[in-house]
Amino acid sequence: MKDLSNNTIERICKIFGYLDALQKKEIGFISSRELAQGLGTTEYTVRKDLSTLGVTGHTRRGYDVKLLKTQLGEKLHLTQKRKAGIVGLGRLGTALLDYEKFKVDGFEIVAGFDCSINKLERIRTQIDVFSVNDLKRVVAERHIELGIIAVPEAAAQNVADTLCAAGVKGILNFSPVKVTVPEGIVYLDMDFTNALRFIAARL
Amino acid sequence: MKDLSNNTIERICKIFGYLDALQKKEIGFISSRELAQGLGTTEYTVRKDLSTLGVTGHTRRGYDVKLLKTQLGEKLHLTQKRKAGIVGLGRLGTALLDYEKFKVDGFEIVAGFDCSINKLERIRTQIDVFSVNDLKRVVAERHIELGIIAVPEAAAQNVADTLCAAGVKGILNFSPVKVTVPEGIVYLDMDFTNALRFIAARL
Repeated sequence: MKDLSNNTIERICKIFGYLDALQKKEIGFISSRELAQGLGTTEYTVRKDLSTLGVTGHTRRGYDVKLLKTQLGEKLHLTQKRKAGIVGLGRLGTALLDYEKFKVDGFEIVAGFDCSINKLERIRTQIDVFSVNDLKRVVAERHIELGIIAVPEAAAQNVADTLCAAGVKGILNFSPVKVTVPEGIVYLDMDFTNALRFIAARL
Repeated sequence: MKDLSNNTIERICKIFGYLDALQKKEIGFISSRELAQGLGTTEYTVRKDLSTLGVTGHTRRGYDVKLLKTQLGEKLHLTQKRKAGIVGLGRLGTALLDYEKFKVDGFEIVAGFDCSINKLERIRTQIDVFSVNDLKRVVAERHIELGIIAVPEAAAQNVADTLCAAGVKGILNFSPVKVTVPEGIVYLDMDFTNALRFIAARL
């Protein structure tokens, strides 16, 4: 999937999510037109995105929801289990540590890190927690591919550098500041700014 | 902005965010072509979205970054201060309670709610906290427009109903389950599923 644009991947992830919802409602088939309507996009875009992936299977009854979802899941590598670690075990970090949905979405949190020994001793969780001093070793030993940053603004870049040096392939950043990562590292900002703007525009 | 599609608003919010970043880098002008490239979209879409808003101001040097940002901010109602309340003061809820960036993005958290008196008594925050039994009164008294849901899955729909009955205009849902809201209420799911899928597809 390395050759697809971010926008295309984003759209395909949305299609996947929509199919997932349809499947839960036990809907078996959907036309590209209905799919486009549900996603608020055009039929042309939907067809183009799916054909980019080499996905076919549009019958007279429309797409087979379950089949299409399976195909997209494979193409998007959503069927592999990935390992993730969280750095920063404050309120947000510990909330994320136990966020059940990571698992559903193909990520398993296998470690938490913090620089405060005090915090590490007091924390109550099922997940193993470590000092950031052990980050490099633990990332290697546990095959952690995704680093999740939940530290305060001032420490975010430093943590990103440490994670990338330790060999993670992707960074999901919950701190309210953008960080820079070396080329080749997948990076996503998870601040709530765009969501809040969207709501403000609608209120 | 009620008449624009969600997709258009989403794109315009992204343009606004991009302009904000340009402004921080002290870039004065940008062409619609550069804007499109930066956003990973087409020049046509950018021009169309901006003209939909009735925004002009494309000179030979391109758009005036600061002016365009101001115009979009006004059109999107981002300049108004909105009041928000958080329901559910577990780890995520308390993390959100003190999330400084809400303020930057035009929202002020003016109240937190929980059903556990024990939790309300132990919590340490600058924000006033209340029992959910007082929700209706506090929403009215403090003119809360946005309700933020941070309760466990099983309680989410109930809380959404209570918030809507109390008169909020929008719901931002951090619980891992979708809730339904009456027509006319702005609703946004803030689960991390799409972000995780996006990363998985890229890893």
